[in-house]
Amino acid sequence: MIKNIRMKEVALGIDIGGTNTVFGFIDKEGICIAEGTLPTQKHADVNDYIDELFGLIHSVKHDLPYEIEIKGIGIGAPNASYYTGTIEDAANLRWKGSIPLVDLIKQRLDVPVYITNDANAAAMGEKVFGSARDMNHFMVITLGTGLGSGIFANGDVLHGHDGFAGEVGHMIVRKSGRECGCGRKGCLETYVSATGVKRSVYKLLARHNGDSELRDVPFNQLTAKMVAEAANRGDSVAKETFTYTATILGEVLANVVAVTSPEAIFLFGGLTKAGDILFEPVRETLEKNLLSIYKNKIRVLPSGLSDNAAVLGCAALVWNKM
Amino acid sequence: MIKNIRMKEVALGIDIGGTNTVFGFIDKEGICIAEGTLPTQKHADVNDYIDELFGLIHSVKHDLPYEIEIKGIGIGAPNASYYTGTIEDAANLRWKGSIPLVDLIKQRLDVPVYITNDANAAAMGEKVFGSARDMNHFMVITLGTGLGSGIFANGDVLHGHDGFAGEVGHMIVRKSGRECGCGRKGCLETYVSATGVKRSVYKLLARHNGDSELRDVPFNQLTAKMVAEAANRGDSVAKETFTYTATILGEVLANVVAVTSPEAIFLFGGLTKAGDILFEPVRETLEKNLLSIYKNKIRVLPSGLSDNAAVLGCAALVWNKM
Repeated sequence: MIKNIRMKEVALGIDIGGTNTVFGFIDKEGICIAEGTLPTQKHADVNDYIDELFGLIHSVKHDLPYEIEIKGIGIGAPNASYYTGTIEDAANLRWKGSIPLVDLIKQRLDVPVYITNDANAAAMGEKVFGSARDMNHFMVITLGTGLGSGIFANGDVLHGHDGFAGEVGHMIVRKSGRECGCGRKGCLETYVSATGVKRSVYKLLARHNGDSELRDVPFNQLTAKMVAEAANRGDSVAKETFTYTATILGEVLANVVAVTSPEAIFLFGGLTKAGDILFEPVRETLEKNLLSIYKNKIRVLPSGLSDNAAVLGCAALVWNKM
Repeated sequence: MIKNIRMKEVALGIDIGGTNTVFGFIDKEGICIAEGTLPTQKHADVNDYIDELFGLIHSVKHDLPYEIEIKGIGIGAPNASYYTGTIEDAANLRWKGSIPLVDLIKQRLDVPVYITNDANAAAMGEKVFGSARDMNHFMVITLGTGLGSGIFANGDVLHGHDGFAGEVGHMIVRKSGRECGCGRKGCLETYVSATGVKRSVYKLLARHNGDSELRDVPFNQLTAKMVAEAANRGDSVAKETFTYTATILGEVLANVVAVTSPEAIFLFGGLTKAGDILFEPVRETLEKNLLSIYKNKIRVLPSGLSDNAAVLGCAALVWNKM
């Protein structure tokens, strides 16, 4: 019985990204007590990947100075379906077709296992550990290579009938617009994302004549961070790029509000480090385009999660059920 | 005790439209056992309106050959908030400001009273009595003078944080587009509604040179029904009007699906009587514009409610709680 007193309850959060898989043991208060990482693309066979991942997990667990009890596992992964526990044809992963990830993981550790996409996990993280603890209707927009969205409605993540709700990044915002990785044209994420920012820089460099420090950077070396830094130094093309990006986001969010009417919209991910040059024009365009009944009600906020945000979100899938 | 055996349990549904208020006693199976109607605009004071309405309700109740027990009251009204029980600044009603309708009605009859807008009531009607009984994620689009929407998500009507979710008719679909009654431009309902159809006829009559029976009809006499009949007789402007209307609806629905991922979208209201000339191009455009993960999954269906649909929807607010 003495042993049990020293046993700490944790949730295992696993964030499967296109490049890295990060996992962590997260306690009830949202503290990450230990973590590890593995290149996602190392193994062509998903079983080899899971074997190495669980080898690492057991090794990290073994090195802890006290015993832990894993109450459940929460996974964030691209194209993951909450209902079926599968990953479906994820463009950025090596494993093609339908991968029954939840079943494969339960074979290694028989605890409750939940899976959803990374943006839904971020929304759950915001609810359980972040700035949305008192909210039942809100939205998280993740701005990374692409644009993801996690929608909280009626007090829970909105999965939709097939587990794939919340693909705001693939709302078509410009008919016959930019080519999207999904095979269509004009999707929101081709404009509003780290990649969208790069594309907009090149569009504006083509349109304008004036000087810009970005004229010396080839497309493949350009990063959204460089654009944000240039904007903060006063580079006019870089500044216009952020206004252009934020205006499109604000317009689309005004339309999404007319569907779900959230209390707040959280922006999350690398691009949000740009700060006010992104947030201010988003807020301004959103307000300007809102139907009157929604005006002056909806806050656009930075995520309340800081370090380990992705893994926290995954672990939140477990703690939310407890 | 013998009296109780003869007592039939009903919900009182009250549909408050811009022109008429219709009420009905609806039993558990969705049968309307008696109904009545009153011009909504007759009284400048909402208390006078409610007094006359309840006078009528008692009179209809008194005339029944058996006794009924009113288990609750469900109300559908423009700009109604489910949370506060109020009607807020409804453009089509005489009573301005915030009207505490639920409180005023509870003073006349102390039973549970629920209020929501007409499209949300239609969605609840579809769930309780219509074609969505087995669905937890679906959407109802009401096509009347304007365009309303009721969204069912996670097994309940999506009210949003303020009770005003589901204003799909006010998604902006054409920047600097048609003037809308809301004071903005380019809202979906300026294109997709009975009024939108009339406007599109005039746009196309201006653009084309060919004959059309609609060239003899002044704008103020034109109805969507006349356009549908002309289309079914082969009138090319009328046919193009429906294709144009349905294409815009299909494109927007593809974007809304990317937010909520419903199993089915029900079209409801007068305009749907046009039948295949409306439904077919909506289905076609929706499929063409959907992100691949949603393709061949989402049904576009006529409402499963026929007569008394609006009042049934209101009564469904009550039966859903029982």
